[in-house]
Amino acid sequence: MEETVMNIPEVVLDIANRARTASYNLVQLKPQIKNQALLAVADALIAATSSILEKNKIDTEKAKQRGISDALLDRLTLTPKRIDLMATSLREVAALPDPVGEVYDMKTRPNGLKVGRMRVPFGVIGFIYESRPNVTSDAGALCIKSGNAVILRGGSEAFNSNRIIAQIMDDAFSQNGLPKNCVQLIPTTNREAVYELLKLDKYVNLIIPRGGRSLIEMVMENSRIPVIKHYDGICHVFVDADADLDMAAEIVVNSKCQRTGVCNAMETLLIHKDVAGQFAPKVAEVFRSKGVTVYANKTFKPYMPEAIDATEKNFRTEYLAMKCNCAIVDSIEDAIAHINKYGSHHTDSIVTTNYNASMKFVTEVDSACCHVNCSTRFSDGGEYGMGCEIGISTDKLHARGPMGLTELTTSKFVVLGNGQVRG
Amino acid sequence: MEETVMNIPEVVLDIANRARTASYNLVQLKPQIKNQALLAVADALIAATSSILEKNKIDTEKAKQRGISDALLDRLTLTPKRIDLMATSLREVAALPDPVGEVYDMKTRPNGLKVGRMRVPFGVIGFIYESRPNVTSDAGALCIKSGNAVILRGGSEAFNSNRIIAQIMDDAFSQNGLPKNCVQLIPTTNREAVYELLKLDKYVNLIIPRGGRSLIEMVMENSRIPVIKHYDGICHVFVDADADLDMAAEIVVNSKCQRTGVCNAMETLLIHKDVAGQFAPKVAEVFRSKGVTVYANKTFKPYMPEAIDATEKNFRTEYLAMKCNCAIVDSIEDAIAHINKYGSHHTDSIVTTNYNASMKFVTEVDSACCHVNCSTRFSDGGEYGMGCEIGISTDKLHARGPMGLTELTTSKFVVLGNGQVRG
Repeated sequence: MEETVMNIPEVVLDIANRARTASYNLVQLKPQIKNQALLAVADALIAATSSILEKNKIDTEKAKQRGISDALLDRLTLTPKRIDLMATSLREVAALPDPVGEVYDMKTRPNGLKVGRMRVPFGVIGFIYESRPNVTSDAGALCIKSGNAVILRGGSEAFNSNRIIAQIMDDAFSQNGLPKNCVQLIPTTNREAVYELLKLDKYVNLIIPRGGRSLIEMVMENSRIPVIKHYDGICHVFVDADADLDMAAEIVVNSKCQRTGVCNAMETLLIHKDVAGQFAPKVAEVFRSKGVTVYANKTFKPYMPEAIDATEKNFRTEYLAMKCNCAIVDSIEDAIAHINKYGSHHTDSIVTTNYNASMKFVTEVDSACCHVNCSTRFSDGGEYGMGCEIGISTDKLHARGPMGLTELTTSKFVVLGNGQVRG
Repeated sequence: MEETVMNIPEVVLDIANRARTASYNLVQLKPQIKNQALLAVADALIAATSSILEKNKIDTEKAKQRGISDALLDRLTLTPKRIDLMATSLREVAALPDPVGEVYDMKTRPNGLKVGRMRVPFGVIGFIYESRPNVTSDAGALCIKSGNAVILRGGSEAFNSNRIIAQIMDDAFSQNGLPKNCVQLIPTTNREAVYELLKLDKYVNLIIPRGGRSLIEMVMENSRIPVIKHYDGICHVFVDADADLDMAAEIVVNSKCQRTGVCNAMETLLIHKDVAGQFAPKVAEVFRSKGVTVYANKTFKPYMPEAIDATEKNFRTEYLAMKCNCAIVDSIEDAIAHINKYGSHHTDSIVTTNYNASMKFVTEVDSACCHVNCSTRFSDGGEYGMGCEIGISTDKLHARGPMGLTELTTSKFVVLGNGQVRG
């Protein structure tokens, strides 16, 4: 991709250094300056549509030569409409409330000290991703709005598209009152650059990897910087003994079929044995009619003889397709144990009319998002009312579940006194 | 210390496995069960006073043979009174509100979904420390109250004391309704055990290192598990041009002298040049009278000719003693730049009557605790009204500043519906 010889450690260190400097200036900016700059980037992206499409064509041609699947090619391809949507996202981020500087939980101590917390940016965020080119502008917008400089490292397949988008953003930002270098893309697809970046804990405050499991594991192995992981979604729906079965059917179909290629789609359906006789034939019928390939455990199989026998591996697979594991379990305890063992701690739903079952499920299922009587598909920053998201954390530290603007900030204690000393 | 041959990887894995199992049971316990168990541990520690003192004597004798300083020996030594204080801490933790299960920020979405967050334990916490033996019982109590199983790894100098305290805790816990193995101490002082522990990211959710810089850096280098660092405190007081100088003098003396061997004591005093003529002689006089050794920058030196010339290294040193750097700076900008460059992002105070200066300081100083017109010595979980603390995080991820019970929990999204599916 990059034909020139590059001193990668030096290049990455320079980028990190410049990001650090930019971050010190970003923290002091008024919300309206950041918002105006975000709107300017939206306009600049639209104005540059033809140049972006030209660069995107280089990426898609290369991808075709390598013979990638139509689905992946579609994700990679930009169109004027998709560039419009990128601009719309930027305008939406501009319209969100600014999280920086908010003081909360302030309480007065007996000695008169006022102790509270203030939301502040992390500083520099490293975002390592393997997604569609629009993620470049989304991530850039969220990081800047939350007061952070960002270093982007996109997938090699979208290198040329990402590079021009990042360049347009940084130019428009710096022409509109933001510091230069608040958005930078690593200018090489060489993996050495990632290893170098992950060493720079004196410059970079947080690494967010978003992509396949091998990418995230590579980041975990090598990072000296705190990481918030975004693993895949192996999501479950559990239909309890006391479920409203009509509701359950709607939720199951929606969770599996409404959109399959996303992390919050259902991959495994668990049915309580007490309702299996009624509910399993219903599921077999609807999945048959929708063309869902079913992987069944032993007790579900009789209800759908054409189903494939499910293996351990099936229960650990994120299909992102019209495929689903179906299993009958003996109890809610078994359902919870299955979810905690085979799931990815992302999103899981119970369908039940039983109060105790609902409380047990949300307490004991060890997942970022525990849903009662609704589709798994709702686990999303927008649907949760957070405005938008940089991803869905499957980690427990700092941010768990959809990560919006607030989750891109940290806090500091602010203590206001009038001369207090400690006795 | 341990004379028997031990398969360390196997021993550590067993401990982690048992902690994991204990953590699943802990999450389901009622607050009153945990509180009764904490009170039982308090009683058990007092009942075992003579056995604890016996084991502590082994540690102190060894330490004397190795010729450690009187100050360190004092920290290591237990007495009946100190064991009483450990029991008192346990009773205080029992009396605190239980953070587990609290649902907060619940909002109703337009489609009727109720989206909120629930506080839940991390699971298993690894606590690696180099402190007094009482930290063993404090940390154990905080982790268990917050619903986490804990794996303790104390300093080798306190090995025998820590071992008996951890054993008494785990026994009393398991005899009072808690699962076995919710408190475990690694039964060897071999450092290999720490390396093994830091690999077990499938079992341990969080590592908290608390101790010297080299310990923490070793943990950072080797951990595959998220870490919340507790670095040292290089704390500053900045006396602004608009300070009330009598108040400033009291705050400076309190921050430096009230207790020196603690992380929230002041190590560097910065004085705005506009008040140096009035304030520096005052400081020289009071530090002289208190016996504080002063390291001065060039412009402070004339006010205290006997002061030692400060080097770069002085400004990066945590003295924990009656020693202080004193420097005159040209502006609040210079003061902030100095703090961000040389400080440890722990606690810094400004003394000022100027509104803009106070706001600028709390916004731009990149520290966990930013104080206005009060002593640095207040940065403490108890003083902040958090009840008690496991330490003071100098990290930005998840917990920053004093870490209490709440900071030992994570959250999950809880979404309550009545049949919603996504359109």
